[in-house]
Amino acid sequence: MSSSPQPQASSPGVVFDTLQAYQRSVALKAGIDLNLFTTIAEGNHSLRAIATRIQASEKGTRVLCDYLTMIGFLAKHGAEYMLTPDSAAFLDRRSPGYLGTMANFLMSPNVAGLLEDMTDVIRRGGGVPKDNAALAPEHPMWVEFARSMAPMMQMPAELIAKMFAGSKPIKLLDISAGHGLYGIAFARHNPGAKVVGLDWVNVLEVAKENAAKAGVADRYSTIPGSAFDVEFGAGYNIALVPNFLHHFDPTTNEKLLGKVHAALAPEGIAIAPEFIPNDDRVSPERDAMFSMQMLGTPAGDAYTYAELEKMFGNAGFVRSEMRELSPFPQRLVVSYK
Amino acid sequence: MSSSPQPQASSPGVVFDTLQAYQRSVALKAGIDLNLFTTIAEGNHSLRAIATRIQASEKGTRVLCDYLTMIGFLAKHGAEYMLTPDSAAFLDRRSPGYLGTMANFLMSPNVAGLLEDMTDVIRRGGGVPKDNAALAPEHPMWVEFARSMAPMMQMPAELIAKMFAGSKPIKLLDISAGHGLYGIAFARHNPGAKVVGLDWVNVLEVAKENAAKAGVADRYSTIPGSAFDVEFGAGYNIALVPNFLHHFDPTTNEKLLGKVHAALAPEGIAIAPEFIPNDDRVSPERDAMFSMQMLGTPAGDAYTYAELEKMFGNAGFVRSEMRELSPFPQRLVVSYK
Repeated sequence: MSSSPQPQASSPGVVFDTLQAYQRSVALKAGIDLNLFTTIAEGNHSLRAIATRIQASEKGTRVLCDYLTMIGFLAKHGAEYMLTPDSAAFLDRRSPGYLGTMANFLMSPNVAGLLEDMTDVIRRGGGVPKDNAALAPEHPMWVEFARSMAPMMQMPAELIAKMFAGSKPIKLLDISAGHGLYGIAFARHNPGAKVVGLDWVNVLEVAKENAAKAGVADRYSTIPGSAFDVEFGAGYNIALVPNFLHHFDPTTNEKLLGKVHAALAPEGIAIAPEFIPNDDRVSPERDAMFSMQMLGTPAGDAYTYAELEKMFGNAGFVRSEMRELSPFPQRLVVSYK
Repeated sequence: MSSSPQPQASSPGVVFDTLQAYQRSVALKAGIDLNLFTTIAEGNHSLRAIATRIQASEKGTRVLCDYLTMIGFLAKHGAEYMLTPDSAAFLDRRSPGYLGTMANFLMSPNVAGLLEDMTDVIRRGGGVPKDNAALAPEHPMWVEFARSMAPMMQMPAELIAKMFAGSKPIKLLDISAGHGLYGIAFARHNPGAKVVGLDWVNVLEVAKENAAKAGVADRYSTIPGSAFDVEFGAGYNIALVPNFLHHFDPTTNEKLLGKVHAALAPEGIAIAPEFIPNDDRVSPERDAMFSMQMLGTPAGDAYTYAELEKMFGNAGFVRSEMRELSPFPQRLVVSYK
């Protein structure tokens, strides 16, 4: 039993499987929404026990559990269902690595809906959201993002803070802070770090909650508003620009990075965790595939390192470098004032 | 570069990949709708040439081609895109094996839309189509089915006719004929075969077209209407019931099979090509996964052989057997009067 469609050379099945691949997303989201994985982890293994506990029909539960078995998120032993290592680690709500909330954001109408009229989007080269959704001030989707995607961002935030937090007193600006985890990781690793989170005012509520949970609220302050409009202040040792540049065209990014450059202290650095495809644009796979998601936005893209380096250079930075975040799929641009 | 998401043990990436898997379906359908594969097969390999020919933006074309490269339907050499063996065989409109039309049916609102409210569907154990779509008389989706899915059905129709057509004069009833290919294959293989196709009157137009194309129109007649209501006639040597039983509950199927039994000659057989999961219901994968698609219907399912055997038995058939259609994913129930 494989956990993904196994194409064979010249098999018509691969066309059929790919046209049905959307069912994988739909089934996993249903399993998460019904709290199926936690229910099984709590000791419910028979169809009847699971169905009763998740308040679903036995037939629907059977079809869902069998499907999730085939795509690798459950194991079936006789008539009993068990979690796999993946679902135990990431889909049991009691697990510290629980990632189920991601489904709320990644499959929301605001995100998945961007690709609904894919053929038109490809014709035009970008999406035309009905209400310019993603970029509207204080759009609630970014609160959803901050809440839903935070668990996924723990690992890269930790990796980046380990690389750059140091032990000297620093002043850090976290642009499009979202959940705030990137800046907060610096504050946790370096007791001399003072962090300023910038985002829409409603999103900053989530960042402040997370700063309080991490015990760093006294060193966490905020600037509400659009990164393109508000004053950043000055003298920052580090400016984080996490997952922000992929929403805009290069000219817009250069304008923003010019502001970042001006806000940095003389030895300051900017750090941008991003999906960064190689120059071939078909590897690494998760970074390169992200360009499809961004095509649904009006002007976004997953930029190569060469493209990002040029934007930072045009904004005044003297040199840049790329760092890996392995095993996390994203990579970093680190750019020096 | 792999052509499917490669999960690793306990990698959070597998959750992310599965929640994004719907993009594979969307991207392949867009490539088919834009005639991308035929365009490349005709000798357009650079982004500019392809984009111009499919009348799309270069950016959108780039993102789509790179994505299709990553999921195995294109190959990228430097800046040029080529077809893979799969796309050359099944996605170039000029290929005799072209299957691109499948996207029209499999991703139509009438089919993919069934799984839209998946969590509710699982709770209830079945879908509640707003207008009882699939089962409404003369619903246009079955005309779409007959036109779109025919290419996929050439192979199994051929395999079944080779097994059972023989050379003696026979009278054959094809219930839910659709495209008509199953019955037509018998007529092609056996000049003494007379075929009666039964389906909605609008769907039978497609079957009649296909019978004419195959040069067997003089031995092809039709019965328009619902298989549950119309008279079948009597004395058939063979009754085909292709991909029909999975729409209904067992009791309804037994009623239908009782009518089939009565219409057969004393030595007659019924043949039902179906998605038939093993008793474990998680293999073979394509047969077993079909239960997810059918869960979206009010009462359908992918039945195991044991379940189908029981339905045929209760309808009066003396014995049944299962036959493989390898390499095609479906299997056959053959049942003897």
